[in-house]
Order: sequence, then C-alpha cells, then structure tokens
Amino acid sequence: MPVVLRLLAEFLGTAVLVAAVVGSGLMGQSLTSDLAVILIMNQIATILVLAVLVALLLPVSGAQINPAVTLALVATRQMPLGLGVGYLVVQLAGGVLGTLTAHAMFERTLLESSTNDRLGEGTFVAEIVATAGLVALVLTALYQQRQAWLPWLVPAWIGTAFFFTSSTSFANPAVTLGRVFTDSFTGISLESLPGFVSAQLLGALVAVILVAPFRRFYVAKEKR
Amino acid sequence: MPVVLRLLAEFLGTAVLVAAVVGSGLMGQSLTSDLAVILIMNQIATILVLAVLVALLLPVSGAQINPAVTLALVATRQMPLGLGVGYLVVQLAGGVLGTLTAHAMFERTLLESSTNDRLGEGTFVAEIVATAGLVALVLTALYQQRQAWLPWLVPAWIGTAFFFTSSTSFANPAVTLGRVFTDSFTGISLESLPGFVSAQLLGALVAVILVAPFRRFYVAKEKR
Amino acid sequence: MPVVLRLLAEFLGTAVLVAAVVGSGLMGQSLTSDLAVILIMNQIATILVLAVLVALLLPVSGAQINPAVTLALVATRQMPLGLGVGYLVVQLAGGVLGTLTAHAMFERTLLESSTNDRLGEGTFVAEIVATAGLVALVLTALYQQRQAWLPWLVPAWIGTAFFFTSSTSFANPAVTLGRVFTDSFTGISLESLPGFVSAQLLGALVAVILVAPFRRFYVAKEKR
Amino acid sequence: MPVVLRLLAEFLGTAVLVAAVVGSGLMGQSLTSDLAVILIMNQIATILVLAVLVALLLPVSGAQINPAVTLALVATRQMPLGLGVGYLVVQLAGGVLGTLTAHAMFERTLLESSTNDRLGEGTFVAEIVATAGLVALVLTALYQQRQAWLPWLVPAWIGTAFFFTSSTSFANPAVTLGRVFTDSFTGISLESLPGFVSAQLLGALVAVILVAPFRRFYVAKEKR
Repeated sequence: MPVVLRLLAEFLGTAVLVAAVVGSGLMGQSLTSDLAVILIMNQIATILVLAVLVALLLPVSGAQINPAVTLALVATRQMPLGLGVGYLVVQLAGGVLGTLTAHAMFERTLLESSTNDRLGEGTFVAEIVATAGLVALVLTALYQQRQAWLPWLVPAWIGTAFFFTSSTSFANPAVTLGRVFTDSFTGISLESLPGFVSAQLLGALVAVILVAPFRRFYVAKEKR
Repeated sequence: MPVVLRLLAEFLGTAVLVAAVVGSGLMGQSLTSDLAVILIMNQIATILVLAVLVALLLPVSGAQINPAVTLALVATRQMPLGLGVGYLVVQLAGGVLGTLTAHAMFERTLLESSTNDRLGEGTFVAEIVATAGLVALVLTALYQQRQAWLPWLVPAWIGTAFFFTSSTSFANPAVTLGRVFTDSFTGISLESLPGFVSAQLLGALVAVILVAPFRRFYVAKEKR
Repeated sequence: MPVVLRLLAEFLGTAVLVAAVVGSGLMGQSLTSDLAVILIMNQIATILVLAVLVALLLPVSGAQINPAVTLALVATRQMPLGLGVGYLVVQLAGGVLGTLTAHAMFERTLLESSTNDRLGEGTFVAEIVATAGLVALVLTALYQQRQAWLPWLVPAWIGTAFFFTSSTSFANPAVTLGRVFTDSFTGISLESLPGFVSAQLLGALVAVILVAPFRRFYVAKEKR
Repeated sequence: MPVVLRLLAEFLGTAVLVAAVVGSGLMGQSLTSDLAVILIMNQIATILVLAVLVALLLPVSGAQINPAVTLALVATRQMPLGLGVGYLVVQLAGGVLGTLTAHAMFERTLLESSTNDRLGEGTFVAEIVATAGLVALVLTALYQQRQAWLPWLVPAWIGTAFFFTSSTSFANPAVTLGRVFTDSFTGISLESLPGFVSAQLLGALVAVILVAPFRRFYVAKEKR
C-alpha cells in the first residue's frame, strides 16, 4: 500500500474516531440528564467505531490511529521512525477534523475551546493505566501473531477502561487534542492536555517494558 | 439462487429491518420517558437484526436490504442494472411492510403519517457521513475479500452512527420511506424524505470515490 | 452422546435459560423503577445465557432448549419423533425448575402464580413474528451448514425481538410455561399461556413453509 | 512459558480484573443514582475486561485468574498441585492490588473496609449457581477442545450471572477478597467473605461432578 494512502487512512480513521467520540457525547447530552447514560452512549459509539476502523484499516495502514501506539511500534522497531512521524502528524490533524465534523453535524461552532479541567492525581494515574493496557494489548497481540483479533481486542479494552478509569480513558494523544476543541460532554481544557498526554506516553513506555520479557516465549512457540 | 428468491429475500429482509427499527421505538416510548434510553433500545434492536439479516441473506441475495448499497454496487459494476432496479423496488415495498408489521404488533393504525421534521443542515451532513461510512465499509470489505465480516461490520457501523450522527443515522432510503408511515419515536415527515434520501445518495457517491484508489492494492495483494 | 445425557442437557439448559430470564427480571425490578432499564437488563441476561448454552450444548443435544425448535426439526424430518417427545418433556420440566431456581436465589416463594395478562391481538401477532424468525433462522443456518454461527445468531434474533415485538418475544413454549410460575416482571398469567403457545406453534409452522423453497439451492451449492 | 512469567500474568490479570470491577462501580456511583444503571456499567466493564484478559493470557498462564477455576483444574488433574498453590497466592494478592489501583485512580484511601453485608440464604445459592456455571463452562470448553471460545464464553456467562443471580455473581474468591477492601458499590463485608467463598468452592465441586459423565463422549468424538 503506497505511503500516501496509508497516511490518508490514518488521517480519515482518526477523524472518524474523534467524530464518533465527540458526536455521541453531543447526542447523549441532548437526550438525557443522566450522566451515566450519556457515558454509556459515548462508550458504545466509541467501541463500535473502533471495531470498524481497526478491521478495515489493518490491511491499509495497520490501523494505529493513535500516536501512543505509533510511538510504541517505533520504539520496538516494528515501524521506521520517518513513517512514524508522518503517522503522528496526520493522526493529530485527523483528531481536529473529527471534532469539526461532529460540530458540523450538530450545528455548533466548528471549533470551540473546552473549559473542562480533567487533570488531577487520579486521572493522571488513570491515563497511565488505560494507555499501558492498550499498548500492552496491541504489542502482545502482535507478538502472539493474533493481529486478526485486534478488531475486537482494542474496543474491548477501551470499552472497559472507559468505565473503570477515573479519566474515562482517553488513552490517545490525537483524540485528546481533538477533544480540546469541543466545549461539551467530551471536552478537555487545553490546560489539562499536557498532563494527559504525558501520562499516555508514560503508560506506553510502561507497556513496552512490561510485555518485553514475554516476547521470546511466543516466538519460541511459533518455531515448533 | 433464482432471482425470484433473491427478490423475496430482499423484500422480507428490508421488512424485518424496518419492523425492528419502528417496533423498538414503540417499545421504548411505551416504557420510559428518558429519550436516551429509548434511543439505546432502538439502536440495540437495529444492530442485532442487521447482524442476523446480513448473516443469513448474504448467500441468498447479498444481503443488501438498502437501496444506497444496491446503487453503489451497480455504479461499481458489481451488479447488473436490471437486477438492481428489481432490488430497489422490493426494498422500498419491504420498508413499508415493515412499518405495517410493527404497527400490527403494537395495535396501532397500520399506516400513519409522521409529523417529525428532521431535515436541517446538520442532519443533511449527518446522513452524508452515515451513508458514506456504510457504503465505504461494504465496498472495502468486498475489495478486501472479507464478506464474512459483514455480519458484524455493518451493525457496528450503524450502531456507532446511530449515536454520533445528529440524524441518528437513517443511511437507507428504504428504511427512510418506511419510517414516513409511523407517527412515533422513529418517524420522519414526508417533507424531510427528499432531503434525507438526497444526502444518502450523495454519501454513497462520496464513498464510491473515496475507496476507489485503495482497490487495486487489495487486488495486488491477493495475487501474491 | 447417549440419549440420557442429551435429555439431561436439554433439561438443565432450559432450566438455566429460564432462571436467567426470571432472575434478571427480579434483579431489575429490585434496582430501578425505569421499566425500559429493567427490560434492557432482562434482555442482556437472556442473550448472554443463550450464547453460552447454544455454544456448549450444540455438540451434546443440539442445543434446542425450545419445544418450537424441536417440533420444527421433527416436522422437517431432521429429528425422530420419539426423541422429540422426550426433548419436549424435559424442556417443559426444565422451564419450571428454572423459575424455582431464580426464586430460591431471590428468596421468594418457590412457585408463584402470575397475574400478568399479556395476550391480545398485538402480542399474538408478535409471538408469531418472534417465533417464525427464530425457527427460520435455525433451519436456515442448518441448511446453509452454518451451525457454528448459531451461538450468536440465536441470541441476536432473540435480542432484537425482545425490543421490537410487543410481547417482548417469549418465542419458546417451555420458557412461557416457566414464566407462569413467577408473579414478577417476567411473569405471564395461566390464561395467556394457551394463546402464546398457539402463536408460537403457528410461527414455527410459518417458518417451516417459508424457508423450504430456499433449501435445495443451498444444497446445490454444497455439491459444487 | 517460565513459571515466573505465568505467575506474573495471573497476578497482573487478577489485579486488572478487580480494578475494572471496583473502578467501574466507583464510576457508576459518581454519575447516577439509578442502581440498575450502575450495575449495567459495572457489568459491561467486567465482561469486556474478562474478554481481553482471557484472550491475551490463555497462551501465557491459561488465563485462570480465579482460584475456583484453578482448584477445579487441580481436582481434575489438569494442573499440578504445586503450581496451583502458586496461582492461588498470586491471584489473591492480585485481587487486593486491583482494589488499590482503582482507589488510586479515584483518589480514595488505598484500602478501605466494606460494610456491605451480602451473605444470606439467597446469595449463598446464587454464588453456587454462578460459580458452578463458570467452572462447568471452562471444563466443558476444555473437554470439547474449544479453548479458543473461552474469551467470549467466560464473559458471556459472568455477564448473564451478573444480572440473574441475587449476589450479582462474584464467582471468584480472589475478586471477593479484593472487594472486601472497598467501601463502595462493589464492596463486600469481611463477615460475608467466608460464606461467599464457601459457596463458590461448593459450586466448583458441583460443576466438576456435573460435567464428568459427558467428558468421555467428547473424547470419543475426537478419536473418529
């Protein structure tokens, strides 16, 4: 697959992901005042779009649509640095396009500025846990040669972390950036962005270290 | 499979789909006043029926049950025009039968006239996004020779678009027509019909153009 | 698999199914006053237990756990009449045991008498639709030689019919009998039983007739 | 896979499981007052994390993450006693770490003492049913040589039992221990612990006895 099509896939994929995250929050808050029900709608929309995107983009771009995953693949030498940088750029741009698309559908100002401060000690830990789990899952699936399970493993992890981490599991710097531009249920203030992204990168690092010792035993199994 | 059985399958399949959409809306509004909970019931019923219909009808008729999909397949020369026209006719008729069946089960007037104006700038964009995503997904799955994944890919997309598009993702002209005849949660006024269908056809066109450049790289991969 | 183990499997399977149906209704009504949320809990519990039961019992007894399915298999000569009668008896007994088990867990009188009259013109049509869909699905999956999909096809159909049919889709005479003995959310009065079971048997008959013309074209495909 | 990595996997796996159970309860109770909606969030988070953990840990440690399962495997001579004891120790320790992690994310005292008395006749029966079903499922899947289905069978069973058993289906002594240390939605008092664990072990015993007669017929089928 030519690089330009891979980049296009990562760009559109991240845009659709963020449109689903932000749009379903807007839908939820327009229909109910029960915050748990809004979060449930938000989670269902997110995990279903992830399933579709990972399934369809795996043979195109690897379906990373997440800078934390891209960096982990570069760090473990499964992806060249140059291509990784290209992925990061289009993922971040796609994140912003996603918010813009959601706002167009719900007839809001195309880009807003969120006032939702989310950063705290608890959510910092939460983003480490959420991202570490996600990256550990992706690397483990690759090491176990089970890429074909990623279309359901990724949404299952994000779906559980949505509800059990105090941050509702952003776990994705491009999605976090996109959510800075919506002043709605899913928004996050610009002030909280650096802390969230730092925690996500730290989580990715934890995952890379954690899954490394298991790796050669999966490989050994393949050789039999 | 003889053409008459294919047409029967598309007719009954679209009818069951619309019965599920309209019926679950009637069920929801009879049980709760929380609009988000009604929409959740409506979405769950829709994605489960889609999974069943796509799985069972794939080897019969291709499980299109959607004029936007049929037109996209005709446009990409994966289906002859004559058969496509036959599919369109029975899909539209099936859509109306679906509403009639739901009304019979809930003891309402068999065909009503909806007063629910849904068309606006936002929902027009939403229907383009929802239908483009659906058609892009179907074409991509076919190009990647992954038809066997359609029974979960189609419901996953419709499920996410249900919550993140401001129109709740009709994305199907036959379903839209059927919903004109119910004055309940899932209804749409006759005035909104042309706009919705136009957006759906536009979305299908966007999808056909968007996925075209990727196609030959999937084919090339098959040849190895 | 010896007949006695098959009968044991159908007995226990139907009991667990009804325990899940009745028990989740009791759980729901103890936690919330929103009838839609109770129905959602009821539906989720039902479709998950169906997935487990169909998966595990398929290689044991065929995982019918439903007299309407058993009768349809006898009628299409896929099961001998004698064994079918045995299945019916243990399914009905299992249904009653299921309610009894749910009541033991929720510390209620072991067998109660429901006062919930559910029969009407609408629910009669609904039970025909729900059971016809279920039996058509089972027969079609068998004819298409896709038994391995039944563990998700059956729950998907029951899950959608739960929400879109006005009767909430009993679609199973053994489950209907079990539900006569609980005076709670999922109960059905003895007076409504004959009408519901009649509609279910009628639905099964409709399905047998409907799927018959498609059958030989699946077979022809296998011969290639 | 070296024993130390297996033990590490069981330790971390049980910790993540309990973090998801306890954390999603905390999330739910912070967002809504509808107990059914909290339980739904709690259940969704639990079944999704189980799917991920069972899938990824199956090739590492067998993905038991539950002393009742480990004991049943030791009892049926599918696991050596010594290794089983090691598993038990790290599962119990992991359970406590899980609660601690959830509390860190939600900025609570790291370990609390629950005041939630859950033990009664009904919940005692419920834990027998829930654990018997789980262990019967695991053993049956192993006997049928369908380990690859465990990533969805286990969550499906726990998901249904969550709603239809009056105890909400703990079904796991390590999870039960972890939940002693949280005074929140998912907590259980220390006084209720022995009764719950006794019922769970009794349930495991029932399952071992129940599935035994079926075993050799699956084996016979394999030999053909």
